[in-house]
Amino acid sequence: MAEKTVTACLLIIGNEILSGRTQDANLAFLGTRLNDIGIRLMEARVIPDVEATIVATLNEVRVRFDYVFTTGGIGPTHDDITASCVAKAFGLPLTLHPEAHARLLAHYPKGDLNESRLRMAHTPEGATLIDNPVSTAPGFQVENVFVMAGIPAIMQAMFDGIVHRLVGGKPLLSRSLTLAMPEGRIAKDLGALQEAYPDVEMGSYPFNRQGNFGTRLVLRATDPARLSAAAKGLDRIVVALGGQGQWDQDPA
Amino acid sequence: MAEKTVTACLLIIGNEILSGRTQDANLAFLGTRLNDIGIRLMEARVIPDVEATIVATLNEVRVRFDYVFTTGGIGPTHDDITASCVAKAFGLPLTLHPEAHARLLAHYPKGDLNESRLRMAHTPEGATLIDNPVSTAPGFQVENVFVMAGIPAIMQAMFDGIVHRLVGGKPLLSRSLTLAMPEGRIAKDLGALQEAYPDVEMGSYPFNRQGNFGTRLVLRATDPARLSAAAKGLDRIVVALGGQGQWDQDPA
Repeated sequence: MAEKTVTACLLIIGNEILSGRTQDANLAFLGTRLNDIGIRLMEARVIPDVEATIVATLNEVRVRFDYVFTTGGIGPTHDDITASCVAKAFGLPLTLHPEAHARLLAHYPKGDLNESRLRMAHTPEGATLIDNPVSTAPGFQVENVFVMAGIPAIMQAMFDGIVHRLVGGKPLLSRSLTLAMPEGRIAKDLGALQEAYPDVEMGSYPFNRQGNFGTRLVLRATDPARLSAAAKGLDRIVVALGGQGQWDQDPA
Repeated sequence: MAEKTVTACLLIIGNEILSGRTQDANLAFLGTRLNDIGIRLMEARVIPDVEATIVATLNEVRVRFDYVFTTGGIGPTHDDITASCVAKAFGLPLTLHPEAHARLLAHYPKGDLNESRLRMAHTPEGATLIDNPVSTAPGFQVENVFVMAGIPAIMQAMFDGIVHRLVGGKPLLSRSLTLAMPEGRIAKDLGALQEAYPDVEMGSYPFNRQGNFGTRLVLRATDPARLSAAAKGLDRIVVALGGQGQWDQDPA
């Protein structure tokens, strides 16, 4: 029954995320969308615009995960070093990509495609482009590494254009129950339920609304029958504890 | 002149962040607050509730960075495994912490401190507690690793309680300029300015508001005189390009 989980890692590249100046929005988007196609985001790293760090991190994660996605650092300025770092990581020269060049030539008014903007047409040699329907300058793919923009609207449009290149396994289905009860009250029974359903991942997330502690319980599994059985088991636990729960309509 | 940068790494522990279900809010808070006291957040990793991953990651980063902060996984349920992972990483037994036990005994009505909640009083042996003024169950510190809650309000209150234990260097001062000009137009001159001021970190962040591309330029340095000189240089560049910029009132 055990089938291999298809895994992914996200590298969020940029000092502005680490300084707290910019709030990342790409992780949540990618985690959700990858899950829909049966790819599990297993790790995300936020790293600075430092060449040695980017190259070393790329070379570590691209052999550990089936897919690696990067966001950020592919613009025209001196701090946009992702493309050259990917080239270094793969031991490839960074060259002018003819198709990317043609797209930028067509996009900019005559004379506006200056030396800095031309940097955005350079990729590791032989890279496959990733379309950018928002602002033209493309991302690119080298083997299992997908290099995308940091601006969420552009990143999301790029992802829509590459999703057909990705091969996932079974998506994780999920159901979640919001409970007006602190998690400490249900923890023991939930742990026992988890032991009875090792193939259903059970997460417990406390929250505090207007001073009242509640819990959101999330069940995730690839097998809908097992998910449903575990959800029924959870219902029985909640009733036995005299609690009240509300199942969310999860998208999956 | 070169003085050692005091560095930090954040480990965000939890499947719910990777699945996209929960949006992290702790990274931006910590990045900002650490910078205020002269500690540079150099990396953040989001990792799942998997013991082997947590232990290996902890042991990798605690020797690479001056400080390591973790968020998440310290509640009463079966998926809260951070404390036991920290114990394993340090080769310490996980034991009932007398002071944490006393606090939980005082907090819960008689009989409510069940076996699951008692898990929250266990720490790696000899750990120093981190106060939790919101919901009592403490975090803890082992050497340079600070273990905090995932709920932002609790994490922030915990951070306020440990900030006096942290020793930073000079804080990075920053100034940022919002420019109604795409970054491709200023990229070359900005690169030259960066070369002239290697001790001032210059970041360029494009944005798209109602279809208009603009750029936010961020200068960061520990030396206020150098920061000011670089800012004046940037002003001259913008004027020469016929652009208009608006300096933000940065907090630092």
